[in-house]
Amino acid sequence: MLPLLTRIDHVGIACRDLDRAIGLYQATFGLEVASLEANEEQGVREAMLQVGTGAAGVGELGVGYVQLLEPLAEDTPVGKFLARRGEGLHHVGYGVSDVRQALAAISGTGIRLIDERPRHGSLGASIAFLHPGDLGGVLTELVQAAGPQ
Amino acid sequence: MLPLLTRIDHVGIACRDLDRAIGLYQATFGLEVASLEANEEQGVREAMLQVGTGAAGVGELGVGYVQLLEPLAEDTPVGKFLARRGEGLHHVGYGVSDVRQALAAISGTGIRLIDERPRHGSLGASIAFLHPGDLGGVLTELVQAAGPQ
Repeated sequence: MLPLLTRIDHVGIACRDLDRAIGLYQATFGLEVASLEANEEQGVREAMLQVGTGAAGVGELGVGYVQLLEPLAEDTPVGKFLARRGEGLHHVGYGVSDVRQALAAISGTGIRLIDERPRHGSLGASIAFLHPGDLGGVLTELVQAAGPQ
Repeated sequence: MLPLLTRIDHVGIACRDLDRAIGLYQATFGLEVASLEANEEQGVREAMLQVGTGAAGVGELGVGYVQLLEPLAEDTPVGKFLARRGEGLHHVGYGVSDVRQALAAISGTGIRLIDERPRHGSLGASIAFLHPGDLGGVLTELVQAAGPQ
């Protein structure tokens, strides 16, 4: 089969204080904030910090993100994660060229989907989560970047 | 400051059964094994599964890896991680162009280093780990790929 995943799009990191976490990644690694937004649907305030600069003419190739996630309330998925496991790695997001096609293909292999249909993610992407219980404990996100693929 | 990190090199995932985990990633996502090796120093048997194909003439750009880690014994870092937290995301590795320079710069910001000097990683890379206690609970690895940078 053809590989469905085109790149590591981002690592999602749960934190208690977004501004402090942004400052840490800026001071330690020199990363800059590419976007800062609240996602009420997912119950988070989040920052995308760009890793890598890519190369001219190759689109998203070579660009990834550290996604820092602060819960909007304790009773949210990231809030519950923090209470249970503390700060740290929360999920990984992989690039796909077509998230609907990828969901159909992956569902066909027996993996449970958290999202049957794509929803809105960071930077205008269409995203969907797969169930960690079927993927060795790893909460896994598919990301179709905004714009032409 | 200049960004130290050039790319998301890999996500490290702790698993109990490496062969089973490889099969899962192949069947679900169509990923292929780029390397399979034991690292006695780190107490793991591990597989690197390539994500993305990069582009001609741009080196490592656009290529990342899922690193699956099975402990060689219970009394190893990954063995203890599995006992404490179960299977799942273990660490993230970022590309750097010079791991010694990066360690010196990061140490200067006050982050504790697990490795004062680089050691051998997957695919011939020079690697070093940073302390998760200073990085929001995230075990963070620096990866200088083998060959010319």
